[in-house]
Amino acid sequence: MAPSVLVLNGPNLNLLGTREPDVYGRETLDGIADTCRARAAGLGLVVEFRQSNDEGELVTWVQQAPQDHAALIVNAGAYTHTSVALLDALSAIDLPIVEVHLSNIHRREEFRHLSYVSKAADGVICGLGGQGYELALEALARRLIPAGAT
Amino acid sequence: MAPSVLVLNGPNLNLLGTREPDVYGRETLDGIADTCRARAAGLGLVVEFRQSNDEGELVTWVQQAPQDHAALIVNAGAYTHTSVALLDALSAIDLPIVEVHLSNIHRREEFRHLSYVSKAADGVICGLGGQGYELALEALARRLIPAGAT
Amino acid sequence: MAPSVLVLNGPNLNLLGTREPDVYGRETLDGIADTCRARAAGLGLVVEFRQSNDEGELVTWVQQAPQDHAALIVNAGAYTHTSVALLDALSAIDLPIVEVHLSNIHRREEFRHLSYVSKAADGVICGLGGQGYELALEALARRLIPAGAT
Amino acid sequence: MAPSVLVLNGPNLNLLGTREPDVYGRETLDGIADTCRARAAGLGLVVEFRQSNDEGELVTWVQQAPQDHAALIVNAGAYTHTSVALLDALSAIDLPIVEVHLSNIHRREEFRHLSYVSKAADGVICGLGGQGYELALEALARRLIPAGAT
Amino acid sequence: MAPSVLVLNGPNLNLLGTREPDVYGRETLDGIADTCRARAAGLGLVVEFRQSNDEGELVTWVQQAPQDHAALIVNAGAYTHTSVALLDALSAIDLPIVEVHLSNIHRREEFRHLSYVSKAADGVICGLGGQGYELALEALARRLIPAGAT
Amino acid sequence: MAPSVLVLNGPNLNLLGTREPDVYGRETLDGIADTCRARAAGLGLVVEFRQSNDEGELVTWVQQAPQDHAALIVNAGAYTHTSVALLDALSAIDLPIVEVHLSNIHRREEFRHLSYVSKAADGVICGLGGQGYELALEALARRLIPAGAT
Amino acid sequence: MAPSVLVLNGPNLNLLGTREPDVYGRETLDGIADTCRARAAGLGLVVEFRQSNDEGELVTWVQQAPQDHAALIVNAGAYTHTSVALLDALSAIDLPIVEVHLSNIHRREEFRHLSYVSKAADGVICGLGGQGYELALEALARRLIPAGAT
Amino acid sequence: MAPSVLVLNGPNLNLLGTREPDVYGRETLDGIADTCRARAAGLGLVVEFRQSNDEGELVTWVQQAPQDHAALIVNAGAYTHTSVALLDALSAIDLPIVEVHLSNIHRREEFRHLSYVSKAADGVICGLGGQGYELALEALARRLIPAGAT
Amino acid sequence: MAPSVLVLNGPNLNLLGTREPDVYGRETLDGIADTCRARAAGLGLVVEFRQSNDEGELVTWVQQAPQDHAALIVNAGAYTHTSVALLDALSAIDLPIVEVHLSNIHRREEFRHLSYVSKAADGVICGLGGQGYELALEALARRLIPAGAT
Amino acid sequence: MAPSVLVLNGPNLNLLGTREPDVYGRETLDGIADTCRARAAGLGLVVEFRQSNDEGELVTWVQQAPQDHAALIVNAGAYTHTSVALLDALSAIDLPIVEVHLSNIHRREEFRHLSYVSKAADGVICGLGGQGYELALEALARRLIPAGAT
Amino acid sequence: MAPSVLVLNGPNLNLLGTREPDVYGRETLDGIADTCRARAAGLGLVVEFRQSNDEGELVTWVQQAPQDHAALIVNAGAYTHTSVALLDALSAIDLPIVEVHLSNIHRREEFRHLSYVSKAADGVICGLGGQGYELALEALARRLIPAGAT
Amino acid sequence: MAPSVLVLNGPNLNLLGTREPDVYGRETLDGIADTCRARAAGLGLVVEFRQSNDEGELVTWVQQAPQDHAALIVNAGAYTHTSVALLDALSAIDLPIVEVHLSNIHRREEFRHLSYVSKAADGVICGLGGQGYELALEALARRLIPAGAT
Repeated sequence: MAPSVLVLNGPNLNLLGTREPDVYGRETLDGIADTCRARAAGLGLVVEFRQSNDEGELVTWVQQAPQDHAALIVNAGAYTHTSVALLDALSAIDLPIVEVHLSNIHRREEFRHLSYVSKAADGVICGLGGQGYELALEALARRLIPAGAT
Repeated sequence: MAPSVLVLNGPNLNLLGTREPDVYGRETLDGIADTCRARAAGLGLVVEFRQSNDEGELVTWVQQAPQDHAALIVNAGAYTHTSVALLDALSAIDLPIVEVHLSNIHRREEFRHLSYVSKAADGVICGLGGQGYELALEALARRLIPAGAT
Repeated sequence: MAPSVLVLNGPNLNLLGTREPDVYGRETLDGIADTCRARAAGLGLVVEFRQSNDEGELVTWVQQAPQDHAALIVNAGAYTHTSVALLDALSAIDLPIVEVHLSNIHRREEFRHLSYVSKAADGVICGLGGQGYELALEALARRLIPAGAT
Repeated sequence: MAPSVLVLNGPNLNLLGTREPDVYGRETLDGIADTCRARAAGLGLVVEFRQSNDEGELVTWVQQAPQDHAALIVNAGAYTHTSVALLDALSAIDLPIVEVHLSNIHRREEFRHLSYVSKAADGVICGLGGQGYELALEALARRLIPAGAT
Repeated sequence: MAPSVLVLNGPNLNLLGTREPDVYGRETLDGIADTCRARAAGLGLVVEFRQSNDEGELVTWVQQAPQDHAALIVNAGAYTHTSVALLDALSAIDLPIVEVHLSNIHRREEFRHLSYVSKAADGVICGLGGQGYELALEALARRLIPAGAT
Repeated sequence: MAPSVLVLNGPNLNLLGTREPDVYGRETLDGIADTCRARAAGLGLVVEFRQSNDEGELVTWVQQAPQDHAALIVNAGAYTHTSVALLDALSAIDLPIVEVHLSNIHRREEFRHLSYVSKAADGVICGLGGQGYELALEALARRLIPAGAT
Repeated sequence: MAPSVLVLNGPNLNLLGTREPDVYGRETLDGIADTCRARAAGLGLVVEFRQSNDEGELVTWVQQAPQDHAALIVNAGAYTHTSVALLDALSAIDLPIVEVHLSNIHRREEFRHLSYVSKAADGVICGLGGQGYELALEALARRLIPAGAT
Repeated sequence: MAPSVLVLNGPNLNLLGTREPDVYGRETLDGIADTCRARAAGLGLVVEFRQSNDEGELVTWVQQAPQDHAALIVNAGAYTHTSVALLDALSAIDLPIVEVHLSNIHRREEFRHLSYVSKAADGVICGLGGQGYELALEALARRLIPAGAT
Repeated sequence: MAPSVLVLNGPNLNLLGTREPDVYGRETLDGIADTCRARAAGLGLVVEFRQSNDEGELVTWVQQAPQDHAALIVNAGAYTHTSVALLDALSAIDLPIVEVHLSNIHRREEFRHLSYVSKAADGVICGLGGQGYELALEALARRLIPAGAT
Repeated sequence: MAPSVLVLNGPNLNLLGTREPDVYGRETLDGIADTCRARAAGLGLVVEFRQSNDEGELVTWVQQAPQDHAALIVNAGAYTHTSVALLDALSAIDLPIVEVHLSNIHRREEFRHLSYVSKAADGVICGLGGQGYELALEALARRLIPAGAT
Repeated sequence: MAPSVLVLNGPNLNLLGTREPDVYGRETLDGIADTCRARAAGLGLVVEFRQSNDEGELVTWVQQAPQDHAALIVNAGAYTHTSVALLDALSAIDLPIVEVHLSNIHRREEFRHLSYVSKAADGVICGLGGQGYELALEALARRLIPAGAT
Repeated sequence: MAPSVLVLNGPNLNLLGTREPDVYGRETLDGIADTCRARAAGLGLVVEFRQSNDEGELVTWVQQAPQDHAALIVNAGAYTHTSVALLDALSAIDLPIVEVHLSNIHRREEFRHLSYVSKAADGVICGLGGQGYELALEALARRLIPAGAT
């Protein structure tokens, strides 16, 4: 059975593409999810996309991830910079984790330069828009699927 | 139709007036809401009051505000000082925003001097108790209602 | 007799409206003063507007305020961020004080986030332009004039 | 009737003992709860154990605590270090509060050295594992039960 | 033979109870020692209480502790915040250590929030007055005495 | 002819004693000046007392001091903490300088702990009320008047 | 003709794989280069790999990059954290830039958390080992090659 | 008519050359003014020199500068490091500004390294003594006088 | 009986005058003590001078001071800047305290600007050499001896 | 023989004028060199212009400067902010040094506000574009050529 | 007579070698002293070794050193990082001083990077174990014994 | 064959002794090298001395050191304080490393107190002039040559 990757999206990512398309582009989170599902299929993976504005719900999803999933992609949005709870949850599970940000957070305000998620993530991809999720999938595929298996 | 102002109140503001009345006064959040409704009517506005202890719920309410409301009054309570998620939500919508605090946060502990909400708010009113909400309404009225319209 | 409110304006506020009207708007300090006088009359107050570029003169005006005035509105301009002398003068008098800023100082440079005036003010209103003075007057009216007196 | 102590546990404490037992030991939160109930009985107290990953829910539980409980034991997990909302809730109620941490947070990362909960707690116990809850109960027993009453 | 616990008390703790009883209570260090001796007996332990105003003497006592004692309770008073020498001594010995403070040091001045002792202690108990020593004894009893042995 | 000591007093010191006598005492700046004049006479000195709320005027007075005076006593009030201009003026003249503060500035807010005046003063006396000026006069007398001359 | 991507590697990256293979793995920089060339071919790109221990040489290569290359992948090694010169060079050219790090620099020492390169890069990929270069190539391919062109 | 350059000098610059000539040299501010007038004439400019110890007066002079002058040279002395008011005035006018300091402020005390004036100045010249004013005039001449016009 | 003032001197003050007389002057601590005894007699006081290099001994002396003395003069030498233990002892006793330093500590290294002693002292005198002790005695005389009593 | 001035230019200054002329202007480093050579001739000086992207080469050039040159103009580009090596080399030679920057570095990013070069330079000129080099030459001419010599 | 070198060892160095030999090695302080005595003899020096856990005793030993010794080797242990008193004593004497640390303190915790002793020492040797003392002796021999004298 | 020690010297150390001999002494780097060669011979070692002003060259030399050398002495000059690249190179090789500085860097400017080299060095010797290299050789001899082998 194809390994499953859980893709968690934090606060405000549900707004993507539906508002101010001239600023953030017309790419929606659903659109990104569709692209990822296609890419995942090609890589021998399945993906499940979720989004929540609630820190506690994200923590709970992380805790439960090992039950059904083999890896995690996390774009924690603003909680990236403030949530020690998320860091603790990510540290408690034993799955490969790739952190993704649509924008290059290091070119934004000072308070966005610190990422608690990075302290638990294996890899980090930022500034590459929705494509960042696809690259994260590819990175995880190499970790989850033995070479020659696909 | 009268423009609607959504008034969001953060954690612990539900306790207002019902506990330690000799410290915080006997003014309850419901009382403030009543006063505001009356004042709003006089200004040609309607108001909707909400309170939540939950950061995620407040973020969601901010996201949905543009559907039914023309402006926002935000007293984020303690989340004022810690919630980048709220800042991002407030920045994502395109409504006039007035931040209100009952106390003068600049005379309190150091960690209450930083307000993430202020980075997205048009105006800030603090230290004037429940009257701050009324003044915020008046400020918004001038922005929402063409002079001579009322 | 109507209680008098002294409105003190700090350095460079005399430039308001006469320079770069497309940036700062066409509202002059005299215009704001006129609006305030009208509003004050409606509230049962009188106002006296003063402006100085001189820290020492502002300190002296604050010291003398209790002789003729019942309350203070202070927009200390740049001295907001540097004048401990003004803080000491404001702390020494026993009048209600509302601090006003035309712009939202919390969205400007880091060094404008600290306000010595706030440490002595009862309330603070910023980011609401000239209307901030009017709202400050209303806030003071409720403190100076017994309900039912107007 | 025996005074009731509410024991609040924050994010990720539900994972205790069920994961990485070689690291965190095999003691589960349920196990600690059982031990505490027994100890409480011996002290003339009853205890109620709750856990939540949600900051807002914890805030609400704190607000409601005085209705049914005489004291609070709080292990806020990661929210210890980030939640001003929890501090405000704890400050608003008038119950004895003992803060507990399983590990010695002062030997961990720098960002775990600050505790907002400590600013509202009467006492703090950390680094003593599940036994910390028992000791907290004993500390509260002396405050809640008149000497000679048990 | 009952394991012995050495209880070290730092500068100014000798003043306890004899001065400003309305502030610090009438509990003296001798009184606490008596209570601890009784409690220790019940736990199958013996205790030895010492106090010194001298950093060097405290360091020497820590160094010698393993000769006659099985565990350490340390209330280093002001040296808590300044003594690297004490930290080094505590780190050099291989005994269980519980740090105790009468007051909740995290609610006092900023310079009392850092504890060098905490970096070497297994557990920390603060803010529970003289009872803190008793709880420390209980914590150590569980580490020193095999379950079922008492 | 008796050497003259110029005593400069900064902003708000003119309020001394006339306001809130229960807080600051009933000692006025004029009263202190009278006491100093008497003490100076006994020491073989004359004193000239001045007060200004104006930083620039204080700077000018310092610059002109060497024309008529042999030493300086400076209580710069709030400018103590903010005026590099005063520091530069005091550094430019070649007179003995004693800094005086009525209160112990090191027990007040953090921003009052830095004194630019101290960087140019020979000695500093604080926390001893009006008597501080007298002690400063005595300190200067020993520097200005050869032993045996009085 | 296939667009060319210049891959710049900073100090000590030449050591990769040849020393301490049990620590850093057996992957050499040449090996990564080979893998990238193959991947590039599949993407319709060509790549040129360079390494230097010399900050000035890296600056010069960046300056010259636009002559022969359409995009840049930069792993500046230790210069990432110290070289403003590299930042200025990268800012001066008008090519798409992806920053790569083999390890997750946010989990290493504090001084490795700041990246001057990130201030000029479009995207950042770190912690994914040699695969990071491949993902960077794919990211650039989408920017350099019109969809449908390959 | 020759464009006029207003040269503003801040606190203590009036002392130049008249005191401690072995330290600061024998060059007086009047001497510098004379040299500048001659140089200005050669450049097709006129200059007006002013000095004040008063922050407010300097602010006012800056505000009025555009009425009679085409450019500004500012040596704000100690106010360089403390006056946000001066920064605001300089930002409000639309004239070319060159900041001058006699000494190299970057080799002096830490608190002289920050210049508020620099945030509004086009150019800065420091450490070149009185000649700095002349060079500032030359810099302004090129901006004020069309090439070929002199 | 004349009130007694205990004068405590910290580490290295015993070296005064006996070493490097060209640097520190020829005034010895014994000489200062003699001068103080004479001055005290004139003021109706007696003084006892002590010196110790030992922090613990100084703490003990402070603790015992109220038994035989009516006031304290403290020159804690280097412990001024590092001893929280001394601060706690000084805070625990209820005597008037004047802090003295021979040099102006605010013109020395940064780490000498913080004084823990100042946080407990009523007044502070520094930079006036051995005369500082005499002035401290005079300050204490006014507090200890009713006017007209001498 | 005319004294020679060595003009050193650091990393990326070779790009001047050839890239993004609408941003940085069309003035090239060669153009500035030509202008300087002409100006130098008029001042009785000769100039030698060099540029390097290499910190070590710049250090070596500074070391060798005294062999052939009488003064130094240094625009160290990005190394201004990071190179202690350059500071040491400049401190080791005994030539007059003027630091030049094309832009006003104090209006740019925080990390460009520190200049190691300034700690060794006699004077600093910034923000005046290529003209800054000419003014530096004039400043050096007055130091190198006796008045009346030209 | 052979010049004498006093070797002072601070807190916890008496534990060396007797505890945790697998961690700190089996080298005791006595063993190091023996080795040093032999080495000193070969260098024409004598050495005296002392150890104390007491800051005050170390200060006193430093003060008395010039009476019998020609140079000092200081390993102040933990007091290295906290003792201004030791710095003052070392600064007061006029002997050559070499600071020694067994471990490389710059690779340990942040608070061990500051050495007050270094501010008074001529040379510093750390990280070379007991051999560091021997090298310090050799360094002092060259300073104390004229070349050719041995 | 005698083990070889590579001695690397950073920027500006080539100037040693040839310039300002009254300041830095007449000892040249060549002289130190000669002395070291003689000392090395006596210790059964050979040494190779190199100097470079170029960070990249130093990094390369460190990388290549294990090919021909058994240990490293590093005086990185100014790069000590700024070069993470050097730290990474030193960390990558597996040779004993002793860091040397001619002056006591801890008594110089703040920015010279941090040494990146120290984070990779086994031992550090500073402030002992050219003799520091000799002592470093002796330290390495004991590590490289079995006791009894020489």
